[in-house]
Amino acid sequence: MQQYSSQLLERAVGEFSKLPGVGRKTALRLVLHLLRGSVEDVERFAEALVTMKHDVKYCNKCHNISDTDLCSICSDSRRDSTTVCVVENIQDVLAIENTQQYSGLYHVLGGVISPMDGVGPSDLQIESLVERVSKEEIHEVILALSSTMEGDTTNYYISRKLEASGIKLSVIARGISVGDELEYTDEVTLGRSIVNRTPFVC
Amino acid sequence: MQQYSSQLLERAVGEFSKLPGVGRKTALRLVLHLLRGSVEDVERFAEALVTMKHDVKYCNKCHNISDTDLCSICSDSRRDSTTVCVVENIQDVLAIENTQQYSGLYHVLGGVISPMDGVGPSDLQIESLVERVSKEEIHEVILALSSTMEGDTTNYYISRKLEASGIKLSVIARGISVGDELEYTDEVTLGRSIVNRTPFVC
Repeated sequence: MQQYSSQLLERAVGEFSKLPGVGRKTALRLVLHLLRGSVEDVERFAEALVTMKHDVKYCNKCHNISDTDLCSICSDSRRDSTTVCVVENIQDVLAIENTQQYSGLYHVLGGVISPMDGVGPSDLQIESLVERVSKEEIHEVILALSSTMEGDTTNYYISRKLEASGIKLSVIARGISVGDELEYTDEVTLGRSIVNRTPFVC
Repeated sequence: MQQYSSQLLERAVGEFSKLPGVGRKTALRLVLHLLRGSVEDVERFAEALVTMKHDVKYCNKCHNISDTDLCSICSDSRRDSTTVCVVENIQDVLAIENTQQYSGLYHVLGGVISPMDGVGPSDLQIESLVERVSKEEIHEVILALSSTMEGDTTNYYISRKLEASGIKLSVIARGISVGDELEYTDEVTLGRSIVNRTPFVC
């Protein structure tokens, strides 16, 4: 590992390269960029991170990241509070919000069941989902987890947990991506998209 | 631009995405990584950056980044203080140090002359180089700037400035990269490598 002529630089590069996907060369580039900027810039950067870490909250209801006890989505009266979409993490909320096709609420699990990574049902916000379903007036729960073994396992676990409530459960559609060509689609996806075909609307 | 459910998150992502090569998606990924870590981790990260920015110094002699007034290279008595290698920036010092082929000192210009970017000779450490040559016992100055129009211009400017001193001036060799094939090398490089051929040593 190359040694810099400054321990201070060394430490800053070391901290930066702990971030995912940031190697030492990238870290050095970022640090030297900060070094060229003003003291105020660096202080504002550092302060934004520390303040966020200290003050950020998670919505009491859906566990989405929030500045208040109830997030802006949960507290928005225009949204359909009878539909709850179960997602893995905060990025998934952003991704679905960006489609502008969904007006219900969310429930952020904080991951999926993955015994390999030591993540069990108790590490996720599943109990709180069951509680929400029993207490709030919810008509439909949409499962929007990744289409992986872990995602499927979690879907199954949640469906068993919600079975007694008799609530309507649905999963987001799997099929060929818009713009994709049929011949290059994998068999599982293509198979699912045939089985789950929808009425033609022109 | 997508809006996050938290202003604190928004601000942290905004600050991160000011860094070169970091878009908003990458910034969000990095911020969420910090958010998963401990408060201490984030504070250490922030503190390392602010401390570096506040306390870092530049060597009085060669203008390399340093924790002390004289950098570790300039103060190393084992190095050959009669040879000075002129480089553009700190990364270039690291790159040459990594080769372990050079034992002289450096002189970091802080850039190259580039009228397009508003960088003139007075913005660079050229005067201090001329002063070093006149005061210190230096036998050779090696120009190791980029092989660009700006680099060549700077080389020429420095050579004119040092002309009176009668010092030995050299430039690093341009030629085919080690491992490169002849037929894919551009004409200018290939031409230079023929003109500047070196005696064959087996």
